Amino acid sequence: MEKNLSTFFLRNIEGDISFLSENDSRHAIKVLRHKNGDQLYIIDGLGIDAIAEILDAHPKKTKIKILKKKNKNKPIQLALAFCPTKSNDRNSFIFEKATEIGVTDFYPIVSQNSERRKWNSEKFKNIMVATLKQSKQFWMPKIYDVQDFNAFVKLEKLPNLKFIAHCKEDQKTSLKSLANNVVPQLILIGPEGDFTSEEITESKIHDFQSVNLGENRLRTETACIVSVTMMKF
Amino acid sequence: MEKNLSTFFLRNIEGDISFLSENDSRHAIKVLRHKNGDQLYIIDGLGIDAIAEILDAHPKKTKIKILKKKNKNKPIQLALAFCPTKSNDRNSFIFEKATEIGVTDFYPIVSQNSERRKWNSEKFKNIMVATLKQSKQFWMPKIYDVQDFNAFVKLEKLPNLKFIAHCKEDQKTSLKSLANNVVPQLILIGPEGDFTSEEITESKIHDFQSVNLGENRLRTETACIVSVTMMKF
Repeated sequence: MEKNLSTFFLRNIEGDISFLSENDSRHAIKVLRHKNGDQLYIIDGLGIDAIAEILDAHPKKTKIKILKKKNKNKPIQLALAFCPTKSNDRNSFIFEKATEIGVTDFYPIVSQNSERRKWNSEKFKNIMVATLKQSKQFWMPKIYDVQDFNAFVKLEKLPNLKFIAHCKEDQKTSLKSLANNVVPQLILIGPEGDFTSEEITESKIHDFQSVNLGENRLRTETACIVSVTMMKF
Repeated sequence: MEKNLSTFFLRNIEGDISFLSENDSRHAIKVLRHKNGDQLYIIDGLGIDAIAEILDAHPKKTKIKILKKKNKNKPIQLALAFCPTKSNDRNSFIFEKATEIGVTDFYPIVSQNSERRKWNSEKFKNIMVATLKQSKQFWMPKIYDVQDFNAFVKLEKLPNLKFIAHCKEDQKTSLKSLANNVVPQLILIGPEGDFTSEEITESKIHDFQSVNLGENRLRTETACIVSVTMMKF
């Protein structure tokens, strides 16, 4: 990617000719004042990094032609499993910041002390599209369906390197010393009321390693961001 | 600190007998329903870690007696200099999250591309008190007066290990490889519009090292949190 072109998100890029959505067309033509012949970046969240030219600067259905197209490698898996908080501001924050940093998979979890048991991921997808464009990334993270703690820790498709962060007394290792960004990794962050002892025991049966995130007691959303930062870098 | 006592912030703890502020008294007595004889944690933001007993559960002026008092060591300096954003939500976020993680000094800076040139730190101090109590820390971070970039980079009292993060082409080293949490450190994060080339040159004259924070382009507030996480751990 070079600099200074606007970026648009478009699913299903097939062939050379595509159309921006109604929202994106309005934004491109009415807000950014693009004209025929102007160039745009196009990403599809599935690895495409393309440059397109505007053929018809229509404010509802802008027609574009793909000029160049590259496929970016999929990043190594960095999965965040967390118990959504009561506040959707804080949940939005988790999705936005974790996506910026490079989380590839989100697992919303309901645990015994969860503050929020009903969950709908849809509203967070727009945040993720905006964040992808802003942070110059090419792969849209996947949000899995919400599931119970006990079902989640048993899943077989999870990365081999699995961490659980909690505040209970336990044999813990610092996440920093265990994190390894050249292999798939997953961190599981508890609710404000923490995981229960039974949950921690259950996670260990399924090869989760107990980790600590330093001495300060972090809020759920901060623990999410701090842990994925340590794992990413 | 043990668990499960409520924490109160009190400046000027002298002698054994003190009084909670009007707000804190109401909170302790009306909300938390504390009675005479109940115990509380008291911190003063200057290293005191104390346990007190309520002598008079007055809803406006609760009288307490300090039972035990320890002095906690001051943490190693971890300074964050940043250009406040237009949005005070995002500025609040920076103060809250950086305090949780363990930043000790905040320097609000006005640079050439700053979005915000008028600044008042007062409103962020309440956030910091709440965060200190929540994250179980004992030292209140210092917020310096806002100052211009050029005056700031010349300051002699800054840590020797000084980093500047920006998006311009430059010889950069990864922050992770330069960070060293056993000595005082400082990171300088630019505004959305980035530092100018002149500013970057000026910072180097004063021994700032150019660093990168990975491949993804991070928003100002995310860059603040990611960088201090890398430096703290």
